[in-house]
Amino acid sequence: MTVGELGEFALIRVLRDLLPPGGPDVLVGIGDDVAVLDGGGGEDGRVWLATCDVQVEGVHFLRDAIHPRDLGRKALAVNLSDVASAGGTPRFALVSLGLPKDLDVAYVTGIYEGLREEAGRFGVEVVGGNLSGVRQGLFLDLFLLGEAPRREVVLRSGARPGDRILVTGTLGDAAAGVALLVGLDGKRPVHDGQGGSGAPPVPAEYALRAARRRDRPEPRVREGQVIGASRLATAMIDVSDGLAGDLGHLVRSSGVVARIEAARLPVAPENRQLARALTGDEWHFALHGGEDYELLFTCPPQAAGVLAERVRQATGTLVSDIGEVLEAGSPGGLLLPDGTLADLGGGGWDHFTGPRTG
Amino acid sequence: MTVGELGEFALIRVLRDLLPPGGPDVLVGIGDDVAVLDGGGGEDGRVWLATCDVQVEGVHFLRDAIHPRDLGRKALAVNLSDVASAGGTPRFALVSLGLPKDLDVAYVTGIYEGLREEAGRFGVEVVGGNLSGVRQGLFLDLFLLGEAPRREVVLRSGARPGDRILVTGTLGDAAAGVALLVGLDGKRPVHDGQGGSGAPPVPAEYALRAARRRDRPEPRVREGQVIGASRLATAMIDVSDGLAGDLGHLVRSSGVVARIEAARLPVAPENRQLARALTGDEWHFALHGGEDYELLFTCPPQAAGVLAERVRQATGTLVSDIGEVLEAGSPGGLLLPDGTLADLGGGGWDHFTGPRTG
Repeated sequence: MTVGELGEFALIRVLRDLLPPGGPDVLVGIGDDVAVLDGGGGEDGRVWLATCDVQVEGVHFLRDAIHPRDLGRKALAVNLSDVASAGGTPRFALVSLGLPKDLDVAYVTGIYEGLREEAGRFGVEVVGGNLSGVRQGLFLDLFLLGEAPRREVVLRSGARPGDRILVTGTLGDAAAGVALLVGLDGKRPVHDGQGGSGAPPVPAEYALRAARRRDRPEPRVREGQVIGASRLATAMIDVSDGLAGDLGHLVRSSGVVARIEAARLPVAPENRQLARALTGDEWHFALHGGEDYELLFTCPPQAAGVLAERVRQATGTLVSDIGEVLEAGSPGGLLLPDGTLADLGGGGWDHFTGPRTG
Repeated sequence: MTVGELGEFALIRVLRDLLPPGGPDVLVGIGDDVAVLDGGGGEDGRVWLATCDVQVEGVHFLRDAIHPRDLGRKALAVNLSDVASAGGTPRFALVSLGLPKDLDVAYVTGIYEGLREEAGRFGVEVVGGNLSGVRQGLFLDLFLLGEAPRREVVLRSGARPGDRILVTGTLGDAAAGVALLVGLDGKRPVHDGQGGSGAPPVPAEYALRAARRRDRPEPRVREGQVIGASRLATAMIDVSDGLAGDLGHLVRSSGVVARIEAARLPVAPENRQLARALTGDEWHFALHGGEDYELLFTCPPQAAGVLAERVRQATGTLVSDIGEVLEAGSPGGLLLPDGTLADLGGGGWDHFTGPRTG
């Protein structure tokens, strides 16, 4: 069987099961956004948060379609988002570069200018790394170490029945930006001049916003810290693979199910319009698009308003209350405006096949 | 200018200069084998050591020429060697894999079996990582966190005039193993049946040993810990790019020069014979071959014998005293058995062009 046939998440489970269980200093190992490592000091001490994520040419980016500075920023941002999702403070980064020999040095310095800028914004220090040649396909692998007071770390596994489900910012814009750049199949622009895409004209202002969300993701570091420090949140994850997929990880880890109300999803009208035109499903980008890098979190119902307001006041970022955590076995899924409940696959979210509404 | 024209070490300097200097918690940043990060506790506290190193298909290994288990072991071993070179204890690893979709799952589980084995030998826990697709060219990027008592960390920058220079184990065997596999030009086996390589017959026992050193490097973790704990060593680096290159890093960082005695180099007679036959220089593999993963360190002359003996007693590994640290401006280089001194380039080691001896 090949890696492509098995799929990413099944492969992660296979590999995790090959390894021995973590020792006492590994508070959280493989399977969360970050590893949580005991930094000493007991229950009142601090923990280290460790994560890594890579940008691969031809898979995560096209060399001619992204400015190297944006690439550098993004490579760090996606890791910052993982530390943010635990409520942590990012501290130290290592950069592992795989570079073709014929790459222009200016491209590499451009990447580093982006790294420097993003690192500076969040107080991160780039403390080392590695340079390697590659035959083909530049890659930029980032390792990020963060820290947090042990009591403030928020994992994906703590959601409880009755909790509200909240999300920062808006959903689906980055995926719309990708679709506008290379189409849904990753091969051509939607507006390629050859017609037939079925896409409506997209307002220029929204197209720009979507491109910005695609190329310059904004990690919700300060939002994550406010959520962690509040000690009100029960679970948190960053939305990098689409709300449906990442909410699926959260509810599976927590042993619960979720019911989301479509009408409460923070999705731009232009985004819904483009999604409907391209896929027939107005929620497609919001639920299945990737790279939002918003924070999805849960908290007891009486804390939801307070917490949302605290994040807004501290960071200016809007927080939407989008649904409820239910006991395992309850009917979860996406509650559509007409009152129907779109499917939620057994054990987690798969995809939504319910009837479409206007 | 391209990356290939500028070269690895010049590019590292360019990138380092783009970044702001490290803050007070970064005890050592870019430029040593590991980053040294303050873990709290002041002078008597512990520090974190962070490093990363990647194995890229077609650059560091050929998929059909190495068992996946050896690849997994090696990917961790080269990082263990970096932590060892600071005298540290390796603790936690993250694994970032770039996999082509058509790769067999068994290849990946093979890599993890090797990782598990090597991690188990040295008490390392694999606590997370990342899976990504690649269009072409598997890569296996490892990030390793170690720790050490702050007072026991050995850097590459502390060598002082008068110090002796010591090295563990033997040099050049892995490079001989590479040459026996793919030739000096990386294209064909030395003994390809087509003659003309000029190589003498290599005893089967030595060919096996060389292949083992190539495919299963042995990180000198316990040796590094003994050297660090002794607090006798003034500088240390691991020999991964050949003795000449890595000694060059050590002396440049320390602001000194080195004089090595060829007759004291721990090199197998078979290795010298093969090097002479293939390159005309019997010291070629020992000085310029890569992937030895031995530890090269310095200490005051009165401590050299004690320290070498302490390592041998604790680990069984032989330590050779191979030369002396001299003041900057002194005539350094390789002292050949006939009394001539082979060139040492300005500011560091380049390559040795002195007369060859029998």
